[in-house]
Amino acid sequence: MLGKEPKISNSVIRRLPIYLRLMQLLKVQGITTISSQDMGVRLDMNPAQIRKDLAYFGEFGRKGVGYEVEYLERKLRQILNLDRQINVALIGAGHLGIALSNYARFQSERISIAGLFDADPNKIGLTVGSLVVQNFSELTNMVQTKNIQMGIIAVPAIAAQDVCDSLISAGVKIILNFAPINLRVPKEVVLRNTDFTTELQSLAFYIDE
Amino acid sequence: MLGKEPKISNSVIRRLPIYLRLMQLLKVQGITTISSQDMGVRLDMNPAQIRKDLAYFGEFGRKGVGYEVEYLERKLRQILNLDRQINVALIGAGHLGIALSNYARFQSERISIAGLFDADPNKIGLTVGSLVVQNFSELTNMVQTKNIQMGIIAVPAIAAQDVCDSLISAGVKIILNFAPINLRVPKEVVLRNTDFTTELQSLAFYIDE
Repeated sequence: MLGKEPKISNSVIRRLPIYLRLMQLLKVQGITTISSQDMGVRLDMNPAQIRKDLAYFGEFGRKGVGYEVEYLERKLRQILNLDRQINVALIGAGHLGIALSNYARFQSERISIAGLFDADPNKIGLTVGSLVVQNFSELTNMVQTKNIQMGIIAVPAIAAQDVCDSLISAGVKIILNFAPINLRVPKEVVLRNTDFTTELQSLAFYIDE
Repeated sequence: MLGKEPKISNSVIRRLPIYLRLMQLLKVQGITTISSQDMGVRLDMNPAQIRKDLAYFGEFGRKGVGYEVEYLERKLRQILNLDRQINVALIGAGHLGIALSNYARFQSERISIAGLFDADPNKIGLTVGSLVVQNFSELTNMVQTKNIQMGIIAVPAIAAQDVCDSLISAGVKIILNFAPINLRVPKEVVLRNTDFTTELQSLAFYIDE
């Protein structure tokens, strides 16, 4: 199972899309090979870190030449499962949910919001871009018929654990949570929290007065 | 200059709010001391990593006892400059901007959205929570009169570099960018990008079929 060993930390996995994005940019610029040194300069990262991260997944570079841009792009797509269609359920059709559904639709080719759900009768049936807000009670059904593999939680904190439990019951094992609350999930579920407060708090470190 | 040495990496700084949040939780639970081992279990992190991170800023722990919760909470607040009011300008009153302004207002005591700006005449003057959307041309004036130290960019990618340049001209040196574009900033400016696509792409790694 390529790259599924538990020793590969979250931090490594989170850097892979950054490498992928750089390869895409280089391809557009007509650059065919790049050294880890040059990657380090462009990404403001340590080249040794980049080499180490990529070495978890295979020997992609050649001494004195570096990485072949097109080959590394293809490999990174494979490692990240981005060589296939990925269907996502987005729960919560408030401002955040709408922003996310617009954002994801325009940005990523293979990750598609396959369903947008809300429990509020005033929101069910509304059109958001190419999506119609569906009743949250349809979730389990949709996860199965639309082959949904990831869930995004964009509901208020008070509703988030229930939504999370429903996603897991429906068979979703990968969850991105935007609600500012610590969710409980079984071990086999991958949960990542995006917390704007933490982001702002860590940036406050750099205030210099 | 406590903790301002350049050798302290972004990654360390980004973990400090996580430690702070844990201390706040422990305080509520009536727990007065905690070992790095226990912190590691609660945060799913390596205890050695936690000790190393905190040691950058002083000797907060005691052998055999661990960290005093209230003391460490106070110290973390000081290190992160969260012992004072921090004023933020939020640019973009679309769905994302509105979601962020609601989110930040309810979550964080000392970080306050002091101004919400947009260039769209149809949005200027609208009320969002306790804020009124202001004309973007007022930015420089507001940064000075309201002592704004951070900027959040929540505009479409095409407008983001102009907004970024205006923030910097106005004197803002810390910027959190939500637009899916690489912004150019001078060296003295701290720029952090939040990219939902990258987040989703890295989660796709865990799809197992």
